Amino acid sequence: MNDVPSLQTLLKQLQQVPYLASKNLYRVAAHFLSLDAKRTEQFCQAIMAAKERIVHCPDCYTWVEKDRNCVFCHSTRRNKKIICVVETWQELIAIEKTGGYQGLYHVLGGAISPLDGINPADLTISALISRIASVGEIEEIILATNQTPEGEATAAYIASQFNKHNLAVRVTCLARGIPVGSSLEYMDRLTVFKALSERRPF
Amino acid sequence: MNDVPSLQTLLKQLQQVPYLASKNLYRVAAHFLSLDAKRTEQFCQAIMAAKERIVHCPDCYTWVEKDRNCVFCHSTRRNKKIICVVETWQELIAIEKTGGYQGLYHVLGGAISPLDGINPADLTISALISRIASVGEIEEIILATNQTPEGEATAAYIASQFNKHNLAVRVTCLARGIPVGSSLEYMDRLTVFKALSERRPF
Repeated sequence: MNDVPSLQTLLKQLQQVPYLASKNLYRVAAHFLSLDAKRTEQFCQAIMAAKERIVHCPDCYTWVEKDRNCVFCHSTRRNKKIICVVETWQELIAIEKTGGYQGLYHVLGGAISPLDGINPADLTISALISRIASVGEIEEIILATNQTPEGEATAAYIASQFNKHNLAVRVTCLARGIPVGSSLEYMDRLTVFKALSERRPF
Repeated sequence: MNDVPSLQTLLKQLQQVPYLASKNLYRVAAHFLSLDAKRTEQFCQAIMAAKERIVHCPDCYTWVEKDRNCVFCHSTRRNKKIICVVETWQELIAIEKTGGYQGLYHVLGGAISPLDGINPADLTISALISRIASVGEIEEIILATNQTPEGEATAAYIASQFNKHNLAVRVTCLARGIPVGSSLEYMDRLTVFKALSERRPF
């Protein structure tokens, strides 16, 4: 449809939105074209406002509304002696949803991945080290990076940095094993191996 | 995350985008937050510009860039004696992609669906009738509505309107049958029945 350049531009922009299948681009474009102007403006304003008003907490690097306190670091109900290290905000949400964690967080901003040009210096690892050193009373660091090659390499790197900086802190990681509700039959070999070798008292 | 209202607003807006799974909303939000300001602005501008600059062709109701001619109605290479009636722009694209149709289009803007509050008056059916009557030289109308209850009801309604207005025009519809590449075994009963009853010389 080379004669409708505004549509071409819109489709090109929508193409860059992750998790939007290319077969649905026309439908999403149709959705925006069918909205009334006010609602479209609200949509755009929400994006622009979010970009302008959401910043990183200088301590834990979670998202914080500008001029507000970090919901984690400034909470009086959270255990400030434990820090859970996650790759991104999405993993933090996954842990928060469990309701089973009351400590603080540290968002790395991704995982080390040289192929994608992400090096340790691109993540908030050195900030984590100085945070632990300056706070002083941290008792445990949970390395909750993803169970991917990148995530595991990142966890290993962080642990090595703790050693290098002589941080006397307990370092743990998430349990690996069979997901709740799964059958052994459908699990990959490595998961079953891990679940077996890291078995625990019943 | 009640303490990050800008993020809440953004997530609420993203929720309204069709074909974006709710599990991916945080990731899409993260995408926009990670973009630089210029690219976000381009994205928003593309939506606003599309809304402002894309209008309907007054004849066939396809999308047209403001101040430009309709790529179909004003083409010198298309057969102006055939009109293919489709529900929305998406179906038009599907037909254009085949490369097998060189006639004109008429976009209804949806299908009759009383449960969703879409009545014949909400579609461009009366515009189609007056278009056929005023042009005068139309030879065939292809009713290419979807094979859904709503699409078939719409086609039936349009055909009845043609009769009512005594339009002497050939009315056809798309062939129903086994999709290319499919096995009979996996087809639903009704499709096989249609393919059988509408069988054709080999």
